[in-house]
This record gives sequence, C-alpha cells and structure tokens, in this order.
Amino acid sequence: MNTQIEKAKEGIITAEMHIVAKNEKVEVEWLRNEIALGRIVIPKNKNHDFPVIAIGNGLRTKVNANMGTSEKHCHFDEELEKMKVAIHYGADAIMDLSTGGDLHIILQRIIQESSVMVGTVPIYGVATRLLAEGKEIKELDPEDLFREIEIQAKMGVDFMTLHCGVTKVSLSFLENDSRVCGIVSRGGALLKRWMKENGKENPLYEQYDRILDICKQYDVTISLGDGLRPGAGADATDRAQVAELLVLGELVDRARDKGVQVMVEGPGHMPLDQIEANMKLMKRLCGEAPFYVLGPLVTDSAPGYDHIVGAIGGTVAAIHGADFLCYVTPAEHLCLPDVKDVKEGVIASRIAAHSADLVNNVGGARDRDLTISKARYDLDWESMFQNSIDPEMARKRKMESESSEEDHCTMCGNLCAVKNDKSM
Amino acid sequence: MNTQIEKAKEGIITAEMHIVAKNEKVEVEWLRNEIALGRIVIPKNKNHDFPVIAIGNGLRTKVNANMGTSEKHCHFDEELEKMKVAIHYGADAIMDLSTGGDLHIILQRIIQESSVMVGTVPIYGVATRLLAEGKEIKELDPEDLFREIEIQAKMGVDFMTLHCGVTKVSLSFLENDSRVCGIVSRGGALLKRWMKENGKENPLYEQYDRILDICKQYDVTISLGDGLRPGAGADATDRAQVAELLVLGELVDRARDKGVQVMVEGPGHMPLDQIEANMKLMKRLCGEAPFYVLGPLVTDSAPGYDHIVGAIGGTVAAIHGADFLCYVTPAEHLCLPDVKDVKEGVIASRIAAHSADLVNNVGGARDRDLTISKARYDLDWESMFQNSIDPEMARKRKMESESSEEDHCTMCGNLCAVKNDKSM
Repeated sequence: MNTQIEKAKEGIITAEMHIVAKNEKVEVEWLRNEIALGRIVIPKNKNHDFPVIAIGNGLRTKVNANMGTSEKHCHFDEELEKMKVAIHYGADAIMDLSTGGDLHIILQRIIQESSVMVGTVPIYGVATRLLAEGKEIKELDPEDLFREIEIQAKMGVDFMTLHCGVTKVSLSFLENDSRVCGIVSRGGALLKRWMKENGKENPLYEQYDRILDICKQYDVTISLGDGLRPGAGADATDRAQVAELLVLGELVDRARDKGVQVMVEGPGHMPLDQIEANMKLMKRLCGEAPFYVLGPLVTDSAPGYDHIVGAIGGTVAAIHGADFLCYVTPAEHLCLPDVKDVKEGVIASRIAAHSADLVNNVGGARDRDLTISKARYDLDWESMFQNSIDPEMARKRKMESESSEEDHCTMCGNLCAVKNDKSM
Repeated sequence: MNTQIEKAKEGIITAEMHIVAKNEKVEVEWLRNEIALGRIVIPKNKNHDFPVIAIGNGLRTKVNANMGTSEKHCHFDEELEKMKVAIHYGADAIMDLSTGGDLHIILQRIIQESSVMVGTVPIYGVATRLLAEGKEIKELDPEDLFREIEIQAKMGVDFMTLHCGVTKVSLSFLENDSRVCGIVSRGGALLKRWMKENGKENPLYEQYDRILDICKQYDVTISLGDGLRPGAGADATDRAQVAELLVLGELVDRARDKGVQVMVEGPGHMPLDQIEANMKLMKRLCGEAPFYVLGPLVTDSAPGYDHIVGAIGGTVAAIHGADFLCYVTPAEHLCLPDVKDVKEGVIASRIAAHSADLVNNVGGARDRDLTISKARYDLDWESMFQNSIDPEMARKRKMESESSEEDHCTMCGNLCAVKNDKSM
C-alpha cells in the first residue's frame, strides 16, 4: 500500500494523519475515516519530504500560490523569491507553472526548496518543449504526456492538475451553446485543439488508468482540472461547465476505487449569487471530494485588482464547500505576477480563507479574531500587530504615523471611541 | 415644500428626479413613488449645487469616501487632494470628518469644491472645539449641537450622520450584555459618556423634532447613525445593536411623516453569514429605508488590508439590501488614510458595489462586464483597459511587461488559452 487513502481504508493511521490531526485539532480516527471516504486528502508524494498539510471537509481552508517562469519572463531567482514570499505570508501550497527555461531543473529546485506541497500542470511542460522545437500542438505525442507525468511523479510532485474532463462529449456542449469567452484554461484549450485537429479523444481521459497507476505508485494527488471553466461571468454555470463536472465526478470514483487521492478544480468567473449552488452541485456530483477553486472572480471589470475580486468570491465559496483557494494576484489577466503581486495575492486569499473559517468555525479562526478584538479594545497595539495576518504591515502603518507613541491613532485622536467608552 | 420627499408625496416630479431617472435608466414616475415612500433618497441640500445622485431601492449601489483632517494630522491641501482622488475613482459621495484646524472653513471649501454630495457628523465639530477649549465631554451644551447642525445645514451639507438611537433604553441593553469591543462609534461613545455623566437622555433623540425642522428647511437627508454598531465580529447582531435599530426604525417613520429624507447606517464588524439576516432585519424594521453600511468587516484580523475585508462584506451586503457602501481604506484601525489609501479604498468599494449590481441586475452592470469579457476574448486590450474600474492601472501593468506590444501577455505567452481556443 502506497497511498494515504489505501491505508485509511485499511484502518491504518499514518504518521501524516497524526500530524494533521494535531495541527487541525481534530480526532485522528475521524480524520482517517474522512481520508478513506475521499473527503480529505493529504497531498504528499512519497519522494517529497516536508511538513504535511491536509485539504478537505472540516479543516482550515487552504491557500495555493502559483509561480513559475514564462517564455517572456524567465528569471529563476525571482521565482524562488516568490516561493519564499508566498510561504512566508501563509501559502499552504505552491504550484510551479513554469513555461520558460529548463523546466525539469526549475521544478527539481522548487521541490527541494519548498517547505509546502508542490503542484504542477504536466501538460504545460510538454507543450512548452513542443513549441520550442517549432512544432504544432497537433503533433503532441500522448506518450510524452504520460512520460512527463511519470517523471514529475518520480521527482516528488505532490499534486498534479490533469484536465481529464475535456472530452468529446463535454466539448459538444461547448459547441452547441454560446459562450462569451470560450476556453480560458491553458490545459483545456491545448487539449481541445489537439483533439479537434487529430479527431481523437482526450488521452488523459481515455487512458485515465495509466494516470492512476503512476499516481498510486508515488501517492500523487490528482487535481482534476476544469478545462471548461467559465472565463466570463456571463458563461458561469453553463452546460459545458456542468458536463465536464459530470465527467470529473465519475473520475473521482475511479481514483478512489483504485486507491488514489483526488480533488476537483472549480470556477473561475462567476457572479456571487451562483457560487453557493456551484459548491453544492460540485460536492454532490463529485462525492464530496475536496474542492479547489480558482477565485471565483465575481466581476470581470477589475483587472489590476483581481486579488480583491477573488477574495470576495473565495470567501463565499469556502463558506459553502470550497476547501482550497488558488490565489489570484493583482497581475491576473495582465502579466506574470512579480514578488509584490505574490504577497498581495497570498494575503487576499488568506483573508478570504480566514473569513470563511470564522463562519465555519474551523481551524481556531474564532479564537484568533477574539484575541485581536480584545487587544483592540485594550488599545494593546503590540498584540494587535502580532495577531494580524500581516504583522509587519500593521506595525508599519501605525509606527510611521504621528501617533506612533500614543495609545490612540491619528484617525480619531482624543475623540477615540474606545477611550471615551472606557472613561467611565 | 422644500424637500424631495414632500414634493414626491404631492406627485411632483422635480428636476432632480428627472436627472436621476435618466442616469439610472428607470421610469421617473416609479422613482417619484419610491422617493415618496422613502425607499429612495436624493441627498442634496438646497444650498449646494452639483449633479445629483440618488441612493436606494433598485438603483446602482453607491460608494462614500470619508476624509478630513485630524488633531494629529492636519493638512488641508492633502484633504482636498483626497477628495479629488476619491471622486476621480468613482466615489458618489464624500464625508468631511475633519477634527483638526478651523472646521467651518474646511467644510465650506469642501462643499464648494466637491462635485458630489457632502456628508458630515456634526457632533465631531462640537466635541473638537470643546476639547480644544480644555473642557470635558460632560460640559457639552446640547444647544451647541443644534446650532452646529443648523450652521452646517445653511452651509449646504447634503446629509448628516446623527446618532439619535443611542438612548437610555438602547444603552441598557449594552450594559446588560457582554461585549468584546464596547462602543466603536466616535459619536456613539461621546453621547454615551455625556449621557452617563449628566444622567440625561440623548438630546438628539429627545429633541428629534428640532433636527427634523432644520433638515426640512434645507432638505438635508438624515443618516441615522449606528452608535452601538458592533466593533468586533463577536459582538455582531447583539441585543444593543438591535435595540438601537428599533429606535432608528421609529425615527425613520417620524422623519418621513414630517417630509424629511432619511437613511439608516448599519454595521460594522460582522461574520459573513450574519450579513444577509442583518440587511433583511434592517429593511423590515426601518420601512425599507436606504441602508448605508460601514463595511461590513468580515474579520478583525487583517489591519492593513481592511479595504479587502470591507469589499467582501460590502458585496454580500449590497446583494441583500445595502444601498450605500462607506469605503474602508487600508489605513483603517491604524492611522488616518493618505491619498493612496483613499484611492485603494474607493476602488475596493466600487468593486464590491459593482459585483453586487451584477447580481441585482441594476445600473447597467451586466452590460459593462459583458463588454470587457468580449474584449478579453477578442484580445482587444484597449477596450479591456477602457472598460476597467481603473483603466490607468490595467494599462500600466500590461504596458510595463515584456509583452507590451503583443496580443498575449507574459503570463501565458504562446500557450494563451484564448489564442489556442480561437485557432480553429
């Protein structure tokens, strides 16, 4: 037995389960059962050693930060710096989405240096090398894709996004409907193009069992990608999105049956009032698998500020079932994020995750808020700073103001409500 | 007849109603009826000339930006700059909350220069002058308060926050319950202190008819302040908050009966799952008066980023009934905001307002999003920039990247999903 879910099904409590139960303050036997049922995953490759974190039902909402070089912007040191900053500000996972430079060397280094789980999208590497060789997407050899999955699994990747749900059937719903923004998933668009140009089924779907075999061997958690996710608010919850979700639901069952950990990715662009229904639909159709959402982005009109847009959607999503938030940075839709964007993105997502955890009463969120609320009423600035999501920023703003030495702040001065309220 | 609500009740359609109906794309007769019923207000003092904007049921969600000098930070030019920046980025209203310098000169200048409605909290000025004279809050003469309200009304203030609901009865609920953070409203704390130290009822409540007479004369819209709003998530929706709301509901009726426009202010700090219930409770108890919310802030743990926290709560609030969002800046709880904070605060609130308007299908929000979504699929960057909430920022990020001249961006390069999706 190689995987957490296999062991959980056999009643075995692993070292990783003990660590998670302790950190999340949950009963380890309950946790084991949730893992056996597939409602919680512990993404940790057998070849990657780091302090484990679990994702799923009843646990603290987790945050992922994407990084990686691109064709036009390829500075490896900068990507490593992004990784450090993301982890410093509380990312629970990072994904290396590099598409520029020597991808295997970059990935190896990131796996070595990361203190959190590492995810990838293997098709990016395959497509990047193909285009670098001057070839067309049509010429992509499915064997290269499976080879890449195996290489990355051996290297120690903890979770992989695989767009297995972009099938002839789900694509037919895309063609018979009218979308404003078509496909906005890189993996989804590549697969659609390959399928159309070759008149073939998606190999990641057709040969799903090969993927399961590889992932089982290394305990790689599959993150079933949403290649047909809506890329515009107007496209949200359309037939193509739901058709793909139906496929993903079946693939969740097959992964669990084979002893492979699996989670499901979700939208995308979506008006706020559709988020709750989407979370519930996904949980029902996919056997309550851990749900990994990209945003959701509740408006298309704020490029430059999509970290805020994503925090709005992410909070509501996490309240209604999302377990894992992929951060969105201020650079989204405009350019590759820089180090500052990564910080802003992680913090915005952590605010969303924490605000949802307050509602769901998980992960000690309420105690944390209570501590800072009490500090505020006590005008205990040091405790306020220390218990903030970004202590350095909170301290900086107060300390650089004219009231750095005083118990009140420059906003209210001696009209401070707390001081007047406590004066009697 | 002086006020919009008086005229509306008489069946008169004013020039201001015509302007609002045209800008909001609503039927003017429907609008008149909503104003007559008090579900919409047009805050515009008879002595202040500017392009009117209305607030309330079925209209685009509006945004207010607070500014003003403080005891410790008093640079009038900076406050004027904040006003300009707030209006440039889309604030529909500004409040002058100055508590430093010659307050009447500052307010007069702001009223002259503002192209949007101007609000104030008259008790700030009275208390500031009192403390400047070395006196105690206890010595505040209620006559000075009414005099200040009248002076500001004459000067042309369009709406005033008056904490009329902090009464002996509502305060008794505060005392019989346990709050983490007591009173966090400056006006509320000042009034409580004055009431306790003098053993008297709140003059703004006791002599409410005097306020109504002044406001009626100049068509000042009353904004009934929530002096007992929760200042910590743990205090949300407690008995003191609801007791005050009951009083405010009765005061709404009395204002409408007398022909005075009125809106109601709301929380405050509040976990996200309580927001919908609060909006519905307020609308029911206060005769569907326009609701002006401060945040709501869905966590206490993110000082330095409360504009994001407020945008999360504000979106959900506006979907469920809030009509007017008071911005929150990154400086909240730490110091007086600077010009950059004002920009960030206005944009975050506008994202919230617009995201809610998309759900509520008001103010042309869906057309706007559709335009930018289509531009995105067309890789029409210029249209994307122009239709963004902050066109300068969107343009800057793309143009400063290595792909400034290309149709794709540095994030995806030639793996651009849209390009691959459209390649067939």
